[in-house]
Amino acid sequence: MPTQLGIAMDTRIKIFHRYSCKGGGKFKLNKGELKLLLQRELTDFLSCQQDPQLVDETMKDLDANKDKEVDFNEFVVMVAALTVACNDYFVEQLKKKGK
Amino acid sequence: MPTQLGIAMDTRIKIFHRYSCKGGGKFKLNKGELKLLLQRELTDFLSCQQDPQLVDETMKDLDANKDKEVDFNEFVVMVAALTVACNDYFVEQLKKKGK
Repeated sequence: MPTQLGIAMDTRIKIFHRYSCKGGGKFKLNKGELKLLLQRELTDFLSCQQDPQLVDETMKDLDANKDKEVDFNEFVVMVAALTVACNDYFVEQLKKKGK
Repeated sequence: MPTQLGIAMDTRIKIFHRYSCKGGGKFKLNKGELKLLLQRELTDFLSCQQDPQLVDETMKDLDANKDKEVDFNEFVVMVAALTVACNDYFVEQLKKKGK
């Protein structure tokens, strides 16, 4: 039976490919695909963001090899960084409650 | 409504804390906690591993700051590396099928 962690890892792979296969390089996200993914899959985390340059900036930050596309490894780095930020917030709240 | 990616990120945080709170540093995994987490949550990925040194070696690999415990950032690096390995396999299979 798949474990919760296995399902969570599988979800990341499926979501990346759901958007990367829309056009251009099948295994990479172009700017349009990244924009769709951010809008649809990271709404909770980005709802406070009103920056019109967000997609451009995220693309620039993630595109480590400067090919104007985001590959899976670069995408995983983004999700890892967001998860660490969420965990920091979670731990801070727990500590405030004295747990 | 939470997105699939949001749920996947949340799952990682919950799983880490489910094991890290068992004893010792509440926000870090000691060797026993890491062993439990690997055995219970990564069975699919580790089922082919028969190495009795696996926990020791994983702890050594992950414990970047050498404090004999694995913190959340170190844990996220492990899950990211496993996810990239799974994705590489997935892409290879897709390419074999000519998709």
